[in-house]
Amino acid sequence: MTGQLPRTGRSDVLDNRARLLEAARAVFGEQGLDAPVRDVARHAALSPATLYRHFPTKQALIAETFTEQRRACHSAVRDALSDADPWRGFQGLIERICELHAHSRGFADAFMTAFPEVMDFAADRERTVRAVTELARRAQATGRLRPGFVVDDLILMLTAHQGLLHAPRSARLAASRRFAAYVIDAFRAAPGHADAAARGVPSRV
Amino acid sequence: MTGQLPRTGRSDVLDNRARLLEAARAVFGEQGLDAPVRDVARHAALSPATLYRHFPTKQALIAETFTEQRRACHSAVRDALSDADPWRGFQGLIERICELHAHSRGFADAFMTAFPEVMDFAADRERTVRAVTELARRAQATGRLRPGFVVDDLILMLTAHQGLLHAPRSARLAASRRFAAYVIDAFRAAPGHADAAARGVPSRV
Repeated sequence: MTGQLPRTGRSDVLDNRARLLEAARAVFGEQGLDAPVRDVARHAALSPATLYRHFPTKQALIAETFTEQRRACHSAVRDALSDADPWRGFQGLIERICELHAHSRGFADAFMTAFPEVMDFAADRERTVRAVTELARRAQATGRLRPGFVVDDLILMLTAHQGLLHAPRSARLAASRRFAAYVIDAFRAAPGHADAAARGVPSRV
Repeated sequence: MTGQLPRTGRSDVLDNRARLLEAARAVFGEQGLDAPVRDVARHAALSPATLYRHFPTKQALIAETFTEQRRACHSAVRDALSDADPWRGFQGLIERICELHAHSRGFADAFMTAFPEVMDFAADRERTVRAVTELARRAQATGRLRPGFVVDDLILMLTAHQGLLHAPRSARLAASRRFAAYVIDAFRAAPGHADAAARGVPSRV
């Protein structure tokens, strides 16, 4: 069947798909997932009908839009877990997640929202939560991460981080970096906890 | 003129105004200032025409809606500035601002947004910024507040705090409290800074 399509026709189809995904990255990246799908079509200079032919639902479009961000997120998790210093790994993971979210509001929305029809993102979130749980356990054992930290605290901070993403891109990136640095400081063990942990004193506060 | 109005007519008018303001507190408090004015009228079980008779613009409605919150904000600023311990005053002010914002998304929006037509809120924000600037100066002098803190950092954190306010009220209040506690810890001077400040070593980082 495909052999019978004229070459230009096939590449048009591929081009349109690529253009739509690029437009979706731009529009969702800047406005978040609330942006209407017709804005994506307009940004790609294609008709909504063309968009719907490639992506019958908004979920289908979202699922393919953030491939690169998802790959970066997986790398961040792998790097953090393989860091010989778990507290450094933990810090790096927070910085990289914040950066990914600041670069794309849409990815932040997809990552943070319970979006049942985009299961891949739920899987990413789960993977990240598992990694943070494991890193936190190791970093608390070194006494560098405060004993009271629980994974929900990272979710809390990433939810708050979304409050910074309404600003224009350049302001957003700077704000996100400063926020991430403060979050890391907030999670750092107060002095004395390290000693307590080293002495084997129960350190849960 | 008013003497000629039947008594029930006047109290109806007053009742309607009070009902509209109560509805505005409920609707804006829960949904933020993006909530349409017609939702306020509906919540008050009054017509949009009645609402517009009392409050010709959304700004006029907003300006009167948060009287109580504004008064609480002024008290918080006064209490913080008169605290003999400036770091304790600084902490208390952050906790109370977060609490006020968590109780009413609309007040948080009004406080945080550049809303030129509601000048009172700009004045509140200015007053709070001045208070925080003064408190920060004093708390840094005691060595308890980190030397690198600038007032923009509080704006950053309050902007992030708005990211928590989409949750339902009960979850919102708990999240806000935990966030405020982390923010205070993030702003706390690392150990050693206190000594440096006491020794008169330049402590700006």
